[in-house]
Amino acid sequence: MPRLRLALAQTNPVVGAFARNAAEVLQAVRSAAARGADLVAVGEMAISGYPIEDLASRPSFLRAARAAVETLAVQLADAGLGAVPVVVGHPDGPFEPRAVDVSTAPTAIAKNCASVLQHGRVVATTAKYHLPNYSVFDEYRVFIPGDDLLVARIADVDVAIIICEDLWRDGGPVARVLDADAGLLLVVNASPWVADKDEVRLPLVTRRATESDTVVAYVNIVGGQDDLVFDGDSVVVDEHGTVLARAPQFAPHLLVVDIDPAPATDPVVTERVQRVSLDTPDTTPGGRFPEGGRPALPRDVAVPLDDTAAVWEALVLGTRDYVVKNGFRSVVLGLSGGIDSAVCAAIAVDALGPANVVGVSMPSRWSSSHSRSDADDVAARLGLRYRTEPIADLVAPFDAQLGLTGLAAENIQARVRALILMGLSNLDGHLVLTTGNKTELAVGYSTIYGDSVGGFAPIKDVPKTMVWELARWRNRLAASRGETEPIPENSITKPPSAELRDGQEDQDSLPPYEVLDAVLDLYVTQAEGAADIVARGFDAATVAEVTRLVDRSEWKRRQGAIGPKISGMAFGRDRRLPITYRP
Amino acid sequence: MPRLRLALAQTNPVVGAFARNAAEVLQAVRSAAARGADLVAVGEMAISGYPIEDLASRPSFLRAARAAVETLAVQLADAGLGAVPVVVGHPDGPFEPRAVDVSTAPTAIAKNCASVLQHGRVVATTAKYHLPNYSVFDEYRVFIPGDDLLVARIADVDVAIIICEDLWRDGGPVARVLDADAGLLLVVNASPWVADKDEVRLPLVTRRATESDTVVAYVNIVGGQDDLVFDGDSVVVDEHGTVLARAPQFAPHLLVVDIDPAPATDPVVTERVQRVSLDTPDTTPGGRFPEGGRPALPRDVAVPLDDTAAVWEALVLGTRDYVVKNGFRSVVLGLSGGIDSAVCAAIAVDALGPANVVGVSMPSRWSSSHSRSDADDVAARLGLRYRTEPIADLVAPFDAQLGLTGLAAENIQARVRALILMGLSNLDGHLVLTTGNKTELAVGYSTIYGDSVGGFAPIKDVPKTMVWELARWRNRLAASRGETEPIPENSITKPPSAELRDGQEDQDSLPPYEVLDAVLDLYVTQAEGAADIVARGFDAATVAEVTRLVDRSEWKRRQGAIGPKISGMAFGRDRRLPITYRP
Repeated sequence: MPRLRLALAQTNPVVGAFARNAAEVLQAVRSAAARGADLVAVGEMAISGYPIEDLASRPSFLRAARAAVETLAVQLADAGLGAVPVVVGHPDGPFEPRAVDVSTAPTAIAKNCASVLQHGRVVATTAKYHLPNYSVFDEYRVFIPGDDLLVARIADVDVAIIICEDLWRDGGPVARVLDADAGLLLVVNASPWVADKDEVRLPLVTRRATESDTVVAYVNIVGGQDDLVFDGDSVVVDEHGTVLARAPQFAPHLLVVDIDPAPATDPVVTERVQRVSLDTPDTTPGGRFPEGGRPALPRDVAVPLDDTAAVWEALVLGTRDYVVKNGFRSVVLGLSGGIDSAVCAAIAVDALGPANVVGVSMPSRWSSSHSRSDADDVAARLGLRYRTEPIADLVAPFDAQLGLTGLAAENIQARVRALILMGLSNLDGHLVLTTGNKTELAVGYSTIYGDSVGGFAPIKDVPKTMVWELARWRNRLAASRGETEPIPENSITKPPSAELRDGQEDQDSLPPYEVLDAVLDLYVTQAEGAADIVARGFDAATVAEVTRLVDRSEWKRRQGAIGPKISGMAFGRDRRLPITYRP
Repeated sequence: MPRLRLALAQTNPVVGAFARNAAEVLQAVRSAAARGADLVAVGEMAISGYPIEDLASRPSFLRAARAAVETLAVQLADAGLGAVPVVVGHPDGPFEPRAVDVSTAPTAIAKNCASVLQHGRVVATTAKYHLPNYSVFDEYRVFIPGDDLLVARIADVDVAIIICEDLWRDGGPVARVLDADAGLLLVVNASPWVADKDEVRLPLVTRRATESDTVVAYVNIVGGQDDLVFDGDSVVVDEHGTVLARAPQFAPHLLVVDIDPAPATDPVVTERVQRVSLDTPDTTPGGRFPEGGRPALPRDVAVPLDDTAAVWEALVLGTRDYVVKNGFRSVVLGLSGGIDSAVCAAIAVDALGPANVVGVSMPSRWSSSHSRSDADDVAARLGLRYRTEPIADLVAPFDAQLGLTGLAAENIQARVRALILMGLSNLDGHLVLTTGNKTELAVGYSTIYGDSVGGFAPIKDVPKTMVWELARWRNRLAASRGETEPIPENSITKPPSAELRDGQEDQDSLPPYEVLDAVLDLYVTQAEGAADIVARGFDAATVAEVTRLVDRSEWKRRQGAIGPKISGMAFGRDRRLPITYRP
């Protein structure tokens, strides 16, 4: 008979909203307790949201976080849930700045913690030891590293509790888990999704389980926070590597599972291990469950999404949470009839519903008739709110007064469109979505203060070739459900054009997108030099031009909206390069 | 008789421009050698520019840096300068990513190095040990720490060579300098200027000199790099704490000084100390200097600028270098007649000359007559290129077509002005300067895609109260030189107004600027919480409103232009906060 019923609560916190986040945890504990859980865990920083960035340097923020955890412990007890131990992630501080010999952030005053709550109290707290300081992570900047492993004994099981990055590194806590002879390794995480992440994350969890002969329970937060999307995908793997339970991705979930870890043994005296004993909730018949004992559990093993579906869900969740968490209810975006705006509109509709998405067609003298009809078609297929605002009468006075020609005359059209969208945003309170894709952003193929305006960029990290793939995938999904395909076939198949002058096509000024995306992957994502890329067989002139465009567009990217990171190297805090740079 | 003639070359590198930067070093060494220097040093990363950010993660960049150093050594020898040892800062790599137990950036492949060149070779290389990872610095993200102290013996002097942050921390290299019994501590730096920096930097250098009983030579780079301004201020302090030589701030300079450090002693065997012996250049009569030996040196001790002058010079240099290093020759900005645009115009003229600054007056129906005349007056006083572009005929079609009212109607005016400036930029290749100050940026008192547009923001880090102070200071400077005061008195004394509706004044919607700047200093710079600020005696409602405005304006700041950091906490990479944040 399994000796521990474990609940992993995949919550969706909002940064700074302590009371709201704690209430979400309380609700999850209530559900878990009703299902007979002996132990409940939520994700890293579930109390504060993640990442908190330099809020970790604000003593008042840290005091509020600590108070929120202490208050939650009391609230749990007041709600009759005090018997069930709850493991929560949260920041803690302020502490004295550390002074250590190796290179440090001498200003850090916070720790990234996990605490165990029971009977109205904070029973024990541990802090993350390995602080990621690469990619989008700046934890060494803002946190003091922890120095112990927490082992909590409950129901005769030793539960080792570690935080996120500590699972990924061989040294430190993971090594001490082996020494401590724990039966269950509980990992609380705030692990953002990127494509192919489940190809490394589950194998890692499985390897830790088998190599340490423990059950591993991995609980992750879910939701969008600025440019990051947390996918959840919480999972429990036994010591043989078998997946016992797995939560769905991109949605809150309470995963409850019975596990049977090795029983606790006499603790070996081990340095830097903090041991606590927890009371086991009474789940015997006549205890918390008067009739027949605990309710039976259904098997709960979600199948992970395939790659394209996961990208789509990440974009939808990232967009929805940015809009909603920032207090907006609706969005507005330009509909050109092209693939980028069509895909962004479909994402927005999936995120917010068609009644909360306003599409604006803004034809110019250069707009083709198919642009107008394709934009109409997108709007009709998606059922969103739609209006047409021709720009000719707005552009002409600029051309006349300033004598605009050439590039200046092209850009003014994109910028007049921006003023229309911002005007509608100011009038009606919509958030403006900007529809640029990663390929455009990379080479600066956009008009700053024109098509780049907006608070959020849903496909910012999606290369052009993947935009087409997403469109086709989303249409297939609709077809499989017997729904209208949201993206017009013509938007997918016609040659892309900015339509800022007569007969303009993207491929007049850019290499074919297949080549362009391949070069960009090497230059941006793989950080290869131009010579390395040429050595792979790409045309030298093309590589020189593409890398030049990427380098000189950094200033535009700096002023661009954020958008969901789905790749291993997104523009933004993931790739920090100088603007002033003369290669 | 002094035993060592030392030259510190305060160069102004451009990030990535290896050949250009090396040529600047070569020229400095040529001048130093002509003046009889035994040893020449340039600043941290003088070969690559600083900071290189994630360029440090690009193997091709690191290989190019290494090649540039090796080439420079050969070029020096080819130029007949090989006898003079030269200490240069540069990145080096790629190295294998480090694997250490404590929290690390496992992806770093570069080191932040100083090398000694002589006789056409790289004689020795050391790497920075303490990697700053706070404020604007991300060195732990991109560099592998060094592990030794380099001591080079020349002219019977042991010269310990360390890099920047290593001077600031007590442990590590500084401790080993004491053990190594060096006569001269040479510190190569890329130390950005902020207000009051010379109140900590010179005392630190002095303390290190006296506590270790060594001469300390501190060489810094100079110039603007994106948001950072390096002030130079290279200095030599003897073991008694006396300043022997000091370079001027905010300009390239070659500081040559005779010093008399303690002679080398038999080296104690010390762990983690790398010792090399250098040849001493032949400076005897008949050697490098055929007649009468080395030329005599004038005393070279610059007086540091007072606070306001230093801020002004930092803004001028930061602006000039951003413009020039990014390949522009001229700037365009809106002239409203208000204090912010007047000060920005004066900075631009000081940076680039009046012929390279275009001011545009863009009056609306709400513009007061004094706005137009004050703008005219600024233009006349500064002698810049000036044009007037009324916006009424450009705004009216938007109001009519979209039915804009209220905030939407206010913003459209600012955005139409933006389109004029961007149109002129596109037509004539000017960089657009945006004139917002730090106070406006903090509370979001600006129109995004309106007055915020531009590539560079000269007074981005200058609070409104300091803008007035700078204006008065600059006028006094002009008066003291018998020049026309650049800022009209009326622009300084009139109540600030955005003039987007009838009779609008800033103080209608904001607290008095003295109060506002005081609250912002506590909230933004000191990172105090609202309750802490109220406890200091500020009005609770004011504090609540100001902090709310700061928090909700983060998305606008993210999309803003960069500008020179002059304070201890600038907006941008110095203060990293989430957009999505619900306090």
